[in-house]
Amino acid sequence: MKDKVTLKDHERIDQLYPGKRDIIQSKQVFSHSVDAVLLAHFAQIPNQPKSKIVDLCSGNGAVTMLVADQTQAPVTGIEIQADLVDMANRSACMNDLDQQIVFLNLDIKDFEQAIRPGSVDVITCNPPYFQSAEHKQNRNQAYALARHEITLDLHSLLDTISKMLKQKGVAYLVYSTERFIELMDACLDYHLIPKHLQIVYPKPNRPSKFFLIKLIKAGSKAGFRIGEPLYIMDEDDQYSKEMSQIFYGE
Amino acid sequence: MKDKVTLKDHERIDQLYPGKRDIIQSKQVFSHSVDAVLLAHFAQIPNQPKSKIVDLCSGNGAVTMLVADQTQAPVTGIEIQADLVDMANRSACMNDLDQQIVFLNLDIKDFEQAIRPGSVDVITCNPPYFQSAEHKQNRNQAYALARHEITLDLHSLLDTISKMLKQKGVAYLVYSTERFIELMDACLDYHLIPKHLQIVYPKPNRPSKFFLIKLIKAGSKAGFRIGEPLYIMDEDDQYSKEMSQIFYGE
Repeated sequence: MKDKVTLKDHERIDQLYPGKRDIIQSKQVFSHSVDAVLLAHFAQIPNQPKSKIVDLCSGNGAVTMLVADQTQAPVTGIEIQADLVDMANRSACMNDLDQQIVFLNLDIKDFEQAIRPGSVDVITCNPPYFQSAEHKQNRNQAYALARHEITLDLHSLLDTISKMLKQKGVAYLVYSTERFIELMDACLDYHLIPKHLQIVYPKPNRPSKFFLIKLIKAGSKAGFRIGEPLYIMDEDDQYSKEMSQIFYGE
Repeated sequence: MKDKVTLKDHERIDQLYPGKRDIIQSKQVFSHSVDAVLLAHFAQIPNQPKSKIVDLCSGNGAVTMLVADQTQAPVTGIEIQADLVDMANRSACMNDLDQQIVFLNLDIKDFEQAIRPGSVDVITCNPPYFQSAEHKQNRNQAYALARHEITLDLHSLLDTISKMLKQKGVAYLVYSTERFIELMDACLDYHLIPKHLQIVYPKPNRPSKFFLIKLIKAGSKAGFRIGEPLYIMDEDDQYSKEMSQIFYGE
């Protein structure tokens, strides 16, 4: 399958767990990381062929491919950076997922060029979640766009998600723990009601850096659920039992 | 010390950990439980003698006494049920805390009869957090008032807390996990900004039933912190290591 695609000088092929997909990555752009894998694992993806599923801020396609592996439905990835869309397209091709996945090179705020408002069943999104002013900007522009709020602030993101989703449509997000309250506040403003929280800890006795959350458009505020905490590493800096289970199914 | 007080027929003296205080309890009214101990442990109580500290919905005084043990400042408990105030007063007396603690038999919405708005540094509150309609009402009125929202709904509670606190004053609450989003939403409405969350689990592999939260009046929405999860019991139904530490300091 790898013959299908041409790699550029700076690119390499990594393995994407679970499912052991091949994925093109590059030192010049942001690589997928554990939050992508956890987001795809946290999301409950419907398996009806007619479901409309969108992965926003799809980057090099890691979440998009992991989501596509869970359903027969077509999946649309939307990403503002043309280089990343190009890589993601070649990765999908390499994994024979190019019939199921379409990547759009689009600012998500312009989604109406491609997707009818109020039509999407499920959205996944691993957005840029460091605030530009708060963290040192990353060393190049491609990194920075993927990690910082340069082109996309939280309110625009949630406004877009709310507009795309059907009533009772579902969004799954990964986000920074220290910005939890900003996210809650903004979600409620856009009638995206948090329903299920999974807090991720880097290892025991360390504060949480990010979390996973399920939002329902126009859902009820009651019945919130906080699942078991998830530790990435154990005390000996090995993957925890839960993480090994998610990555390797063992 | 126990000679100081007279017990009624239905009353007994229990021990209140940590600190091994004596506390009067009764089958006829709601007894303190683990959430009271965890709330008092979670709260950071200033030790300045001039601090103004209030325990709302103080019940039989468990949280109030555990808070008083952490400071030289006077502590005011406010409770709507006269029977509970009577028990709490006698418990405070029995523990020689009657110089430091005053219990007011008052609907907290009428707090201005006793406390100047905008004057309180720290509030602790273990409010009634089951909604009247959702859960079967408890078997007698005294239980019901302590556990259900009969006399006090969430918005009135947060309105009162916000009015009592100084700017940047702090409130510590225990609340029901399934009502987390309702609490977040209402907190933001009253400019009480959540800053630190501790999620409590009954034991491993069980969903959380309640959580502890720190709110700052007119605080910044950034910099939210989620601490380590706290398990009450371990897998063998014994108190977890953390709980033993909190209760017995071992």
